[in-house]
Amino acid sequence: MTDLYHRIMKFDFATSSKIIFGVGVIKELNSILNQFGHRVMIFHTRNQHHLDTLETILCEKEKTSEYFLVSGEPTIDMISDAVAIARDFKCELMIAIGGGSVIDCGKASSALVTNPGAITDYLEVVGLGKPICSKPLPFIAIPTTSGTGSEVTKNAVLSVPQMRIKVSMRHNWLIPLIAIIDPELTCSMSPQITAYTGMDAFTQVIEPFISKKSNIMTDMFCREAIQLAPKNLIMAYQNGMNIDARVKMSFVSLMGGFCLANAGLGAVHGLAGPIGGMYNCPHGAVCASLLPSVIEINLKALKSRDAKNTVINKFKEIAKLISGFATASEEDLVDYIKKICVDLQIPKLSQLGVLKNDFQLIAEKSILSSSMQGNPVLLNQDEIITILENSY
Amino acid sequence: MTDLYHRIMKFDFATSSKIIFGVGVIKELNSILNQFGHRVMIFHTRNQHHLDTLETILCEKEKTSEYFLVSGEPTIDMISDAVAIARDFKCELMIAIGGGSVIDCGKASSALVTNPGAITDYLEVVGLGKPICSKPLPFIAIPTTSGTGSEVTKNAVLSVPQMRIKVSMRHNWLIPLIAIIDPELTCSMSPQITAYTGMDAFTQVIEPFISKKSNIMTDMFCREAIQLAPKNLIMAYQNGMNIDARVKMSFVSLMGGFCLANAGLGAVHGLAGPIGGMYNCPHGAVCASLLPSVIEINLKALKSRDAKNTVINKFKEIAKLISGFATASEEDLVDYIKKICVDLQIPKLSQLGVLKNDFQLIAEKSILSSSMQGNPVLLNQDEIITILENSY
Repeated sequence: MTDLYHRIMKFDFATSSKIIFGVGVIKELNSILNQFGHRVMIFHTRNQHHLDTLETILCEKEKTSEYFLVSGEPTIDMISDAVAIARDFKCELMIAIGGGSVIDCGKASSALVTNPGAITDYLEVVGLGKPICSKPLPFIAIPTTSGTGSEVTKNAVLSVPQMRIKVSMRHNWLIPLIAIIDPELTCSMSPQITAYTGMDAFTQVIEPFISKKSNIMTDMFCREAIQLAPKNLIMAYQNGMNIDARVKMSFVSLMGGFCLANAGLGAVHGLAGPIGGMYNCPHGAVCASLLPSVIEINLKALKSRDAKNTVINKFKEIAKLISGFATASEEDLVDYIKKICVDLQIPKLSQLGVLKNDFQLIAEKSILSSSMQGNPVLLNQDEIITILENSY
Repeated sequence: MTDLYHRIMKFDFATSSKIIFGVGVIKELNSILNQFGHRVMIFHTRNQHHLDTLETILCEKEKTSEYFLVSGEPTIDMISDAVAIARDFKCELMIAIGGGSVIDCGKASSALVTNPGAITDYLEVVGLGKPICSKPLPFIAIPTTSGTGSEVTKNAVLSVPQMRIKVSMRHNWLIPLIAIIDPELTCSMSPQITAYTGMDAFTQVIEPFISKKSNIMTDMFCREAIQLAPKNLIMAYQNGMNIDARVKMSFVSLMGGFCLANAGLGAVHGLAGPIGGMYNCPHGAVCASLLPSVIEINLKALKSRDAKNTVINKFKEIAKLISGFATASEEDLVDYIKKICVDLQIPKLSQLGVLKNDFQLIAEKSILSSSMQGNPVLLNQDEIITILENSY
C-alpha cells in the first residue's frame, strides 16, 4: 500500500447540517424558520425580486427583520458595521440571499457577532488567524448565482482595500447551518455574470480533482460536475431561462463548494486571490482567463519533472468527461477549455485592467497563498509569470 | 419539464457534521475529544481489541468512562437501561464502537437521555411516533463492520421482542454528530459476517438507486458504490486482511448510509424488517437472500404494468456497473446477483429459520413498512409471496 493510496482513500468531510436543493425550494424556508428566534438579519443585494420573495416568507412567520445591503465584495469595515448592527438588533438568525459576496458577508458576520475582539484577530495573513471560540449565530445561505459554492464552504473571503489584498476567515463552524439552493433564483443572472460565476464553479471542480489533497469522495463529486459543467454553462449563457441548465449549474456549484472545502484548490485560485485583492475585477472572470494557461503550464511542469505522476491521467480524464470522446488526450484539454472561454467571451487579464508591471508581485503573493498548496506540482516563479503572460 | 424531472433534480441532504474516513483515523478521536465534556459513555461489543484501542485514547485524555455492552440487536428495554445509566452517570458524550446494533443502541440512547417521557412515545408503529424535542447528547459513531451505514443515518432500528417486531426511531437529529470510519477496524470480521454485512451495504446502494425517491445526488453515490461493491466484497470475504478491499467496502457502506437516509430503500428492506422482527436471524443474510428475487419480480412487475418507466434503464445500468460489460442487460442482473450470493454462500430463507406458514403475515407487514414506499413499483401481495417463495 503506497502513501499515495492512503492519501486518496482518506478524507475528512464536513458540510452544512441540511442542504435543500431544487426548483422552488425557497418556499421550504417557511417551515425551517419555526426552529429559530424572531429577530432575523438579512444580507442582500439590490435584486428587489429576491428580496420580495424573502420578505413575504418572513412576514408570514411574523419575524422582525433588519436588512443589510451588500454592495460589492465584503470588506472588513463592512463586516464590522454588520456585526455592530446585529448586536444592537439582538439578532437571533442571519440569512444571506445573493452571490458569494453576500453569503461571505453574512457568514463572517454570523461568526464575529458571537466572538469577542476585533475582526482582524480572526483573519489569516493580515491578522492573528485565531480560531473562533464560540459557535456562530445560526446562518442560512441562499445562493442566487451558481459560482462560489460558498453555501457549503468553511471560509469567507474578505477584502482589505487599504492593503490591496483579500484574506480568508476559515473554520469548520463557518459552514452555513442550512443551505437552500433554488436554481430558479439564478435565472435573473445576466449572460456575463452567468459566464463568470459558472467558470468559477467549473474551475472549482477541476482544481480539487487534480489537487494534492483530492480523495475518493471529492473525486466522485468532481467527475459528476465536470461532465455537467461546460455544456450546461453554455446553454445557460445562451438562454438564461433554460431551467434545466440552471439546475445543473447550481448542482455544479454545490459540488465545487463541497470539493474546495474538502480537497483545496490550485494555481488558478492561488493567482486569482492576489489579483482580486489588487484590482476591482470579477473573480470568476479572472479564474476563467487563467484556467487554460494554468492547465497548460501544469501539464508541462508535470511532464518535465514528474512524468510518472498519476495526476496526468486525471487531466486526460477531464478531457474525456468534457468532450465525451474516449480518445481525448490531456493535451486536447487546453484547447477544449480555450474554446469554452471563447464561446463565453471571457476577457483577457489585460482587458480586466491587470498591469504587466504587477506580474512579479502577483506571482510572489500567489506562491504564499493557501490555494497554491493544492496545485498538483510546485510551480516556480518563472512558470507563474508565463501563466500570467499567456493569459494577458 | 416533467414531474419526474423535478423529483430527480430535487433533494434534501443531511449528514453528520464531520465524517472522518481512512485507515488509522481512529487516532483522530484523540484531538476530537477536546471539544467535549469529561464523562463519556461507551457502547461496545465483546471485541476486546477495539475496546482496548478506545480505552487507550480515553485514558490519555483523562476521561471518566462508563461502559455499556450491547449483545445482539438493541431492544427497547436495553435502551431504557442505557438511558437510566447515562442519566445517573451525568453523561456528557456517547461513543459507540461496533456494528449497526451497537451504533443504533448508542444513537437511540443519546436522543432519549435528553428527551422526557417513555421510549415508546418516540417510536413508529408501536408508539406515538412523537418527534424528539431536544437535541441528543453529542454522539460519535465508530463502525467496525461495513454494512448498515448507521454512522450517517437518521434512524435507529430497535426490537420489541414481546411483539416480534422491529421499529425505527427516526429524526434528523439522530444523525451521529461525528462519524469516524476506520476500515482497519473491519478486518476482524469473519468471512460470514463480512458477507452478510457487505450484502446489506450492497443492497443499500441498489435500493436507493431504483427508489421512487432517488435523486441526482444519491444516484451519484450509488453509481460509485455499485461499481465497487461486489468485487471488493468477494475479495474481503476471501481474505479479511485485504485492506484495500476493506477500505472500499467501508466506503460502500458509508455511501449506503447517505443514500438510504436521503432516498429511502425498497422491497428487500421492506421484507427484511418484518422478518428480522419475527426471527432472530442476521439482517444482512436476510437482505442478501431476498435480493435476487426482489430484482426479478420488480422487473417483471415494471415490464408488465409500467413498461416505459425509466427506472428499467437503471436496472440495466446496475448490470453494466457490476459486470463492466457495456452489453449487459437488466435481465442479466438477476443472474449476476445470484452468482454473488453463491460465491458468498448466502443461505436461503429456509436455512435462516423462516417458516412458510408466516409468509402471509410477513407480506402483510411488509406492505405497511416505510421501506416498501421507496420500491419502484407497487407490489401486490401475490408478488411479495412469490419473492419469499423464490428466496426459500
